[in-house]
Amino acid sequence: MTSSVRDIQDVFTRVAGDLGRVDDRVMRAGSVPYPLVASLLSDIVAARGKRLRPLLLILANRAFCPSSDRVIPAAAGVELLHIASLIHDDSIDHAALRRGQPTLNSSLSSGAVILVGDYLFAQSAILAAETGIPRIVSIFASTLGDICDGQLREMFDAHRLEQTREDYTQRIYGKTASLFAGAAEMGAYLGEADDDGLSRLRDFGMHMGLAYQIIDDVLDFRASEDMLGKPAGNDLREGVVTLPTMIFAESLPSGASDRQTLLDVIGGQESDRASIDRLVSRIRASGALDEATTEAERQIDHAKSEIALLDRGDVAEMLGELADFVLSRSS
Amino acid sequence: MTSSVRDIQDVFTRVAGDLGRVDDRVMRAGSVPYPLVASLLSDIVAARGKRLRPLLLILANRAFCPSSDRVIPAAAGVELLHIASLIHDDSIDHAALRRGQPTLNSSLSSGAVILVGDYLFAQSAILAAETGIPRIVSIFASTLGDICDGQLREMFDAHRLEQTREDYTQRIYGKTASLFAGAAEMGAYLGEADDDGLSRLRDFGMHMGLAYQIIDDVLDFRASEDMLGKPAGNDLREGVVTLPTMIFAESLPSGASDRQTLLDVIGGQESDRASIDRLVSRIRASGALDEATTEAERQIDHAKSEIALLDRGDVAEMLGELADFVLSRSS
Repeated sequence: MTSSVRDIQDVFTRVAGDLGRVDDRVMRAGSVPYPLVASLLSDIVAARGKRLRPLLLILANRAFCPSSDRVIPAAAGVELLHIASLIHDDSIDHAALRRGQPTLNSSLSSGAVILVGDYLFAQSAILAAETGIPRIVSIFASTLGDICDGQLREMFDAHRLEQTREDYTQRIYGKTASLFAGAAEMGAYLGEADDDGLSRLRDFGMHMGLAYQIIDDVLDFRASEDMLGKPAGNDLREGVVTLPTMIFAESLPSGASDRQTLLDVIGGQESDRASIDRLVSRIRASGALDEATTEAERQIDHAKSEIALLDRGDVAEMLGELADFVLSRSS
Repeated sequence: MTSSVRDIQDVFTRVAGDLGRVDDRVMRAGSVPYPLVASLLSDIVAARGKRLRPLLLILANRAFCPSSDRVIPAAAGVELLHIASLIHDDSIDHAALRRGQPTLNSSLSSGAVILVGDYLFAQSAILAAETGIPRIVSIFASTLGDICDGQLREMFDAHRLEQTREDYTQRIYGKTASLFAGAAEMGAYLGEADDDGLSRLRDFGMHMGLAYQIIDDVLDFRASEDMLGKPAGNDLREGVVTLPTMIFAESLPSGASDRQTLLDVIGGQESDRASIDRLVSRIRASGALDEATTEAERQIDHAKSEIALLDRGDVAEMLGELADFVLSRSS
């Protein structure tokens, strides 16, 4: 019997070997024969984030089998897909910083950034194909489709106050949760899980991913400019309606003046910094952030319920730690 | 014995059934749930070009077996990959027109254009995965990588007069020939060709694709502004060195004043319209276009030599017509 899992760091330590091999593959796939791009890209890959998606894939795999070599290219493919998608995101948003590091936008033309993103999409697809398993490629390709769909929804449908929770959920599913769901499903599939196991792991990933994005949307309001490199309430300033804003709007009595201000900010008619700052403060003071956090907690509870009956108790514990980590993160 | 092939139109007629099914799949994959994007996209897909790549894939398949259902998603995937890549290209070049039609750039923000391209990449990967054959997905993914590589090379390495023919060939292989090569290889693989057949068909596609791009580069100098929607010598004006310019430069005696003008235009120090027009006229008058065309003819001869011994003589004839068509096109 393996000793029980202490914390998220302990989880990372237990899969350090596999994660190291994933990192190597990501670095190799991201190396290109153009010196300028190569050096920028290696900085981006090296300043990697928490690698939650490859970690999830590896754990989902271990839930069903001790370890499989084929998880390495699959997990590296998932991480590269994530990086490629962030690069296009930053280009779309004209973002200058990501994780405190300059983005490619600050050094390359917008055309070059598009191409570098495309190149990494290709490398991620090559890694997925390397598993030699059609179903893995299929999950991979439809996940990419879901991500683009979520981003297009955000672009075209997120700038309306009148939208349902389902609209929001569908959007954040595509944008964020689909890749967590896909990573978990790929891991389980490579572990030869049965249909029930596949669907449970996929749902685990999906609910964890939904929680991840809700927390992101809460942090966007909560964090200070120092932490994010952008003012609190940045989504709202860009006219993007997220869960905290929806909850705040639902709580307003009809005819409240805040509702008109909100509509004006979202519609871009109100751009006075002081008015927007005031609105952001009202949302922070309204309890909407706590309520959104509670929704994220519900998603995490749902995720955990999917893995409660796993045979491998130690892996379930690690997945549980990972889920809790999503709630606890502050950046 | 099938009657002999008359012309390229006859070839299109003989595969009309399969091409129609490919078109349906392309249209379906390109339909999206955002009304604005959907209508723009359906215009682009409907104003489709010559569909040479799916045609090549289908013929390469028929060279080895009567017909296979799985060629349809593969051929549709190849065409969508081509369309996605053109959409990103137009965005990178800020092009307003393509095939006489307004590009997405003229109606959408640059961010939306990036996402629509990504979405179509995803749909093309989904189609490739639908074949359920790892090798097809593998060819598909590495072709996408080659395309991006060629485009990155054009961006970073094409603006130098001092480059070898190999540099040029490597660039146009990635940018253009790789997709013809990949399409032919996929078709042959789905037809269960043996290794020799696979490699011959792949080489056929590659040499045909190289010829295609050389002719493109010649047409860029030859065509009038009316035909292209941009002035003759557009590549040169953008500092991109193609085969005609390389041949012209090789023919100049050392110390010729044209060489300095050429270097200045490529380096962006010379932007006077009249000087550039004069230089373009000198290149047109120099015989460099004919010499480049001869190189394209050599590529087509090479392509045809690869299929000379095919068992299916009627398919070899059709592939030959396709290859000749690449030489004869004027737009």
